[in-house]
Amino acid sequence: MSNKKAILVVGAGDATGGAIARRFAREGYIACVTRRSADKLTPLVEQIRAEGGEAYGFACDARKEDETVALIERIEREIAPLEVAIFNIGANVRFSVLKTTSRVYFKVWEMACFGGFLMGREAARVMLPRGHGSIFFTGATASLRGRDGMSAFAGAKHALRALAQSMARELGPKNIHVAHLVVDAAIDTDFIRSNFPDRYATKQDDGIVNPEHIADTYWMLHQQPRDAWTHELDIRPWIEPW
Amino acid sequence: MSNKKAILVVGAGDATGGAIARRFAREGYIACVTRRSADKLTPLVEQIRAEGGEAYGFACDARKEDETVALIERIEREIAPLEVAIFNIGANVRFSVLKTTSRVYFKVWEMACFGGFLMGREAARVMLPRGHGSIFFTGATASLRGRDGMSAFAGAKHALRALAQSMARELGPKNIHVAHLVVDAAIDTDFIRSNFPDRYATKQDDGIVNPEHIADTYWMLHQQPRDAWTHELDIRPWIEPW
Amino acid sequence: MSNKKAILVVGAGDATGGAIARRFAREGYIACVTRRSADKLTPLVEQIRAEGGEAYGFACDARKEDETVALIERIEREIAPLEVAIFNIGANVRFSVLKTTSRVYFKVWEMACFGGFLMGREAARVMLPRGHGSIFFTGATASLRGRDGMSAFAGAKHALRALAQSMARELGPKNIHVAHLVVDAAIDTDFIRSNFPDRYATKQDDGIVNPEHIADTYWMLHQQPRDAWTHELDIRPWIEPW
Amino acid sequence: MSNKKAILVVGAGDATGGAIARRFAREGYIACVTRRSADKLTPLVEQIRAEGGEAYGFACDARKEDETVALIERIEREIAPLEVAIFNIGANVRFSVLKTTSRVYFKVWEMACFGGFLMGREAARVMLPRGHGSIFFTGATASLRGRDGMSAFAGAKHALRALAQSMARELGPKNIHVAHLVVDAAIDTDFIRSNFPDRYATKQDDGIVNPEHIADTYWMLHQQPRDAWTHELDIRPWIEPW
Repeated sequence: MSNKKAILVVGAGDATGGAIARRFAREGYIACVTRRSADKLTPLVEQIRAEGGEAYGFACDARKEDETVALIERIEREIAPLEVAIFNIGANVRFSVLKTTSRVYFKVWEMACFGGFLMGREAARVMLPRGHGSIFFTGATASLRGRDGMSAFAGAKHALRALAQSMARELGPKNIHVAHLVVDAAIDTDFIRSNFPDRYATKQDDGIVNPEHIADTYWMLHQQPRDAWTHELDIRPWIEPW
Repeated sequence: MSNKKAILVVGAGDATGGAIARRFAREGYIACVTRRSADKLTPLVEQIRAEGGEAYGFACDARKEDETVALIERIEREIAPLEVAIFNIGANVRFSVLKTTSRVYFKVWEMACFGGFLMGREAARVMLPRGHGSIFFTGATASLRGRDGMSAFAGAKHALRALAQSMARELGPKNIHVAHLVVDAAIDTDFIRSNFPDRYATKQDDGIVNPEHIADTYWMLHQQPRDAWTHELDIRPWIEPW
Repeated sequence: MSNKKAILVVGAGDATGGAIARRFAREGYIACVTRRSADKLTPLVEQIRAEGGEAYGFACDARKEDETVALIERIEREIAPLEVAIFNIGANVRFSVLKTTSRVYFKVWEMACFGGFLMGREAARVMLPRGHGSIFFTGATASLRGRDGMSAFAGAKHALRALAQSMARELGPKNIHVAHLVVDAAIDTDFIRSNFPDRYATKQDDGIVNPEHIADTYWMLHQQPRDAWTHELDIRPWIEPW
Repeated sequence: MSNKKAILVVGAGDATGGAIARRFAREGYIACVTRRSADKLTPLVEQIRAEGGEAYGFACDARKEDETVALIERIEREIAPLEVAIFNIGANVRFSVLKTTSRVYFKVWEMACFGGFLMGREAARVMLPRGHGSIFFTGATASLRGRDGMSAFAGAKHALRALAQSMARELGPKNIHVAHLVVDAAIDTDFIRSNFPDRYATKQDDGIVNPEHIADTYWMLHQQPRDAWTHELDIRPWIEPW
């Protein structure tokens, strides 16, 4: 068992989750990163170690209660006390409501919301006896309002925000910092480069978000003293219309 | 087949759903009312008939896609074209997030949100070819913000509101009126009488909502001409703090 | 003194204010309508009278406290008890913040917000001793969020909404119904016809709002029983993107 | 003329404004602080200088256009280019709407909103030709919703938020970072100590906000790279109910 502390990043498959893990690892946290298949985590884990940090990759289906429970128990038992838990799974799909199958509607909620509930609850369970910890959720514009084609995704993101608000009010007075970050932006990823080349071209003018800057904001929130906590903030590039 | 039109009220077990069904029946709509077990619907159906209206009760588990699909097909085939569909299932529970089992979290979403998605989508499916219809969802204060103990319920209600907003934006320009009603009130029911007698005592001063007045608002919304539709409104007693 | 009741419509110069006055006059209220110069009110007053109603036009600068105080005292003394007061003055301007003079910024607030405060407070003053009455404020999309070029207008409309919310919470439990209507639409007026002909052309498809339908909503709100009051709602044409 | 940059803090009379000025002065900014009478600024200016910083106090009535224009011109001409402008004037009063005189209603708006417009516009005017700068506004819970007794204060704070949103959308794409901070808390001041001793007693448990921690958040916002700007966030102590 390390005398360091652990951060769990659920959904470290994308640029944002990876950047958060690396940021906290640079600050001395042991990064525990998950996605559904562990082998895709290898590059991230190796990068963190190459940067002098400590990291472990876990295959974990965030929608499965037993997997999430077991993961957090294992981190607590084998690695270090869990000090920070970050839920970063998106499931951005766009379908006409008529073409939204019940399977899609359920899966989007299961990934983007139910997984957040499981992680949030289990993280709170191990943090509460120690009386401190941070639990952060990544939101989106769809967290704030519905749109044409967004029945499933906006539903899941609204529910995740309600979870964050409810947990913040319940756990804040127990010294657990719960926050929700509305990231309204194209992020510097292969996906944006391939699918939205015009948007990607604004990168040279800072028109898409550098994931490391999102990670800085997560770190800042975790550092806030408890007399001055932030529970919700937005992140957008300067040129983003909204 | 009647040359009248049908209204479907999913969740006609409580005072509000029943009052809506009776209100539309008085206006000449055939009331198709559902709850999980049909026998409990008998008093409502008989009351509507005694008032000169036409009504049918259906046992239907709103969380089951096949049951919802079959119900709406049957209404269309055997009763009358579906002109109005109202989702009125609540699932108000209050648990600490630590004590919220994944089963409870899922069931609250399934009842209070997923059932609304199924009804909304299937109602839209039969309304769109005709180019008109109304789909209304009953919300609550928990639709607007999370609270201590409300992780599950606020999540489901937020998601239902996101569904209503997304459907309104998608289906409005196709002449389907989608609206969300935030009912923030104690309603005149046996539940309130038994469990909150002090609150119930305010009834003589109009401190709890008469379900028939909620029903009037649903009827008003359905009557709105399409150049002046309302998509969200609140309903509260005059003395309600908020 | 009549044994009828009076409605005051502040800002009856446009289509909406006029339609509200006519609607309540048809229901037996004495319509007291204002704008800055009385002669422009003559057609409206004559129309109401031709329709069998009772109406009086008043020149009143809604931004002047003494004029508003005197107007309401005069209505109470000479015409009828004030039962309904509606504030319907807009001041929709769009300027870059750099080009917004302090004079414009002040005047927009003075017209679209301060006048509402004066009317609302003075109406409440005469309604409270009788223990009933309705005070309604007309809002807009700018009531809900700021936009490029909207520093002045959105500021005034936000402040008016805050007034409506504060008054509703304070006066509701004293049986004064205070509500705020977000009208997000092009309205059937000469202004839209002249300046936005493409939009006006959607009239044949109900793409612009008929002021009489807005007036119906004001009347509906005033008719609501106090156990089921609405405090905010939106009005938009079916095809309105939002 | 210094080759340093200037920060203007309008409303540096309270703990928050003073802490912000000191924070930025520690980072090398020249702190230009204002309140209505200059002599009360002397302790703050001396404290900043004693800490090794550079500071100037200005008597300035923030509600007067000519004074605000002259102040910013003078800073630009005599001190340093204005890089950061912070509006931190509150005017928290609580009156029944009936007892809110038009003088109070106007003054609260003039102080808490109009002064913000003047500072924001004039700061933007000198920042835009250089193509960079930060303009931040201090908000409160009353920025988000009205309450009993809050007609005047909530109106002014809502309008200030609308200003911040409108300026952010207009000036963001010109590289001016505009943000609004919702500070929902008792702050460690003499006012709270004297008037709310029970609340002040929570200080030992971090129940009231240390102004230096608010200042850290302002500094963090100013440091954000433009691909990941935050436009609104809240600050609350961990035990704050909301």
